[in-house]
Amino acid sequence: MATIRALCRAEQEAKVEPRSLADLNLPHAFKEVADLSSNSVVTEIEKCILAAAKSILAGHGFGFNVPSRSSANQIYVPEIDRIVLKDKSSVREFANSSSVRKTAITTRVLQLIHQLCIKQIHVTKRDLFYTDVKLFQDQGQSDAVLDDVSCMLGCTRSSLNVVASEKGVVVGRLIFTEDGDRIDCTKMGVGGKAIPPNIDKVGDMESDALFILLVEKDAAFMRLAEDRFYNRFPCVIVTAKGQPDVATRLFLRKMKMDLKLPVFGLVDSDPYGLKILSVYMSGSKNMSYDSYNLTTPDIKWLGVRPSDLNKYKIPEQCRLPMTDQDIKTGKDMLEEDFIKKDPKWYAELELMVKTKEKAEIQALSSFGFQYLSEVYLPMKLQEKDWI
Amino acid sequence: MATIRALCRAEQEAKVEPRSLADLNLPHAFKEVADLSSNSVVTEIEKCILAAAKSILAGHGFGFNVPSRSSANQIYVPEIDRIVLKDKSSVREFANSSSVRKTAITTRVLQLIHQLCIKQIHVTKRDLFYTDVKLFQDQGQSDAVLDDVSCMLGCTRSSLNVVASEKGVVVGRLIFTEDGDRIDCTKMGVGGKAIPPNIDKVGDMESDALFILLVEKDAAFMRLAEDRFYNRFPCVIVTAKGQPDVATRLFLRKMKMDLKLPVFGLVDSDPYGLKILSVYMSGSKNMSYDSYNLTTPDIKWLGVRPSDLNKYKIPEQCRLPMTDQDIKTGKDMLEEDFIKKDPKWYAELELMVKTKEKAEIQALSSFGFQYLSEVYLPMKLQEKDWI
Repeated sequence: MATIRALCRAEQEAKVEPRSLADLNLPHAFKEVADLSSNSVVTEIEKCILAAAKSILAGHGFGFNVPSRSSANQIYVPEIDRIVLKDKSSVREFANSSSVRKTAITTRVLQLIHQLCIKQIHVTKRDLFYTDVKLFQDQGQSDAVLDDVSCMLGCTRSSLNVVASEKGVVVGRLIFTEDGDRIDCTKMGVGGKAIPPNIDKVGDMESDALFILLVEKDAAFMRLAEDRFYNRFPCVIVTAKGQPDVATRLFLRKMKMDLKLPVFGLVDSDPYGLKILSVYMSGSKNMSYDSYNLTTPDIKWLGVRPSDLNKYKIPEQCRLPMTDQDIKTGKDMLEEDFIKKDPKWYAELELMVKTKEKAEIQALSSFGFQYLSEVYLPMKLQEKDWI
Repeated sequence: MATIRALCRAEQEAKVEPRSLADLNLPHAFKEVADLSSNSVVTEIEKCILAAAKSILAGHGFGFNVPSRSSANQIYVPEIDRIVLKDKSSVREFANSSSVRKTAITTRVLQLIHQLCIKQIHVTKRDLFYTDVKLFQDQGQSDAVLDDVSCMLGCTRSSLNVVASEKGVVVGRLIFTEDGDRIDCTKMGVGGKAIPPNIDKVGDMESDALFILLVEKDAAFMRLAEDRFYNRFPCVIVTAKGQPDVATRLFLRKMKMDLKLPVFGLVDSDPYGLKILSVYMSGSKNMSYDSYNLTTPDIKWLGVRPSDLNKYKIPEQCRLPMTDQDIKTGKDMLEEDFIKKDPKWYAELELMVKTKEKAEIQALSSFGFQYLSEVYLPMKLQEKDWI
């Protein structure tokens, strides 16, 4: 526990927010978005529409300057360990047969967002689509324009009051307010508290935890919640139940930033588990314009790591052979900057691809149902066995 | 509100538990399971193993008497509106080459469950599988035997302390305890409380609600939670986010039984929405032995019903054409006892299949983002427009 305390202290003394793009003096310019208040979004939209109106009155018609979100305009910046968007953009003209539809959709989405921000309510992308099916035709079109609008206005999608559906749950040594309600996550039974879809309603985080335990799957979360693991090792336990959703990513980042705690990742020992860590840390490609707000820097890979399989003598029968697809995914990941920058992570993935073996967190159950909470994690934490 | 109050009163005055199989004097015998305490499960397992030991000592070898869970042994009983299991069973002999493996697996599962019930901890099916991968080979085998063991011991799967992963959330006028923690669902922000995987840790439900609103999807749940709909219409709002999971079904049933409140279903107007209501009400085929504990009788279909599409003038663009598969599913459902027994439900489904149109709850957003919470539901409830 002394070592975790030291790590925790180091984390709290460190300047946590140095990793801004502006500090780096990079050769490119970048497009990044920020969390804006509903009022600021309203103002930005009104500016945008006023400019269009002036342009029309001046006889020039109108168009929107839309940042490009294509992969050619994306880049991984190792210094900040995130995928970000370069500053290429193009004008979406109304008076152009190839862009008239998209310009009309953009205008309509701006109007809808304006309404949401004035009313201060949140909706899903699906709700947004249904407000004008005739124009949008399919949800892919309104979704894409929504991301364009984020980039145009320079704000996160959450600032637009369009939220993703929630999957995540949290339990442990965390108290926060949600829409005015005080939530104590040590008093959330074994099921935990559902992470809300709208992060802007979350505030006043307090905690006496020493670390955050980020768990890939529901089953491991359940085990730890039922055993009230956070009472023995003061921590906050969080899971998105598989693929990280936007709400859980925002919540994790907010915890890390507000509480200044180290984050330990507990995932399956397979390329997919590593992919999940990478989404939490470096972001996903299609939301690279918002990577700053969605990513949590410096997650430690606690386990289950490929080297754990022999170290903890996971029985042969509990190891699964990797499929051809798994091996291909693993090999592709070896080429990714995200892995290459860390020799220890690289070595682990290399070992996985070489042994062609994977294992789930549940494989630890072969030593007893509570091996995870009573042996594996305490040992890992005491031995500082994270990379 | 007066009408809902009357319905609520009727519900509370009614004998809620009259629908037992035993009361019906039916020609078949049935196999049903009950919630047993961990101690009782331990006793049942010990009895079972003692009988096996005696049989071995008497020179007869051993076997287990396992109820058949095949569809030939399942029947829908209209009087209680559930699928139940008839009493056919067969002996699983150890000294028979065709059943030796399954008998060994059954013995091992009994041993593992014994251990779980003594320790009073809960695990997932996946955890159970991993405790002896060599014997079980694949999870399908341990899962199937787990259901056999439920039937053999005459207890629910939850009583075995093997739980499903949770997906559901609840918000509104409900207070309950979970593993000793007091949870007030009016103070759960906008994200709500995650429904716990283990219903046996849930107790002391209290509520001043007039009804329970069962919502198919997350987006509608979010809308109602953010608008704090339960403050205007005193209710409890619950969703499993799509396909009902076991934890949410158990939780809904417990609310209905303990609080004696009417339940209103809000689902998409498509065969899948109706299917979801049917799973909550009548159970799913593969868990028919436990239909009593998993089903919630008498859910009212509030909406979105096929007749609502014209009544509420849902724009043409927000209605979707049914696919061939949808139409086939709809036609098949018209043949099901569950639908046939209620002429109003039958008429609605017939209309859906005839018009070949479906619509999601979100289609209501075409009238404004808050149309669902501010117009549609209040109108439905005031006009008693449920069937």
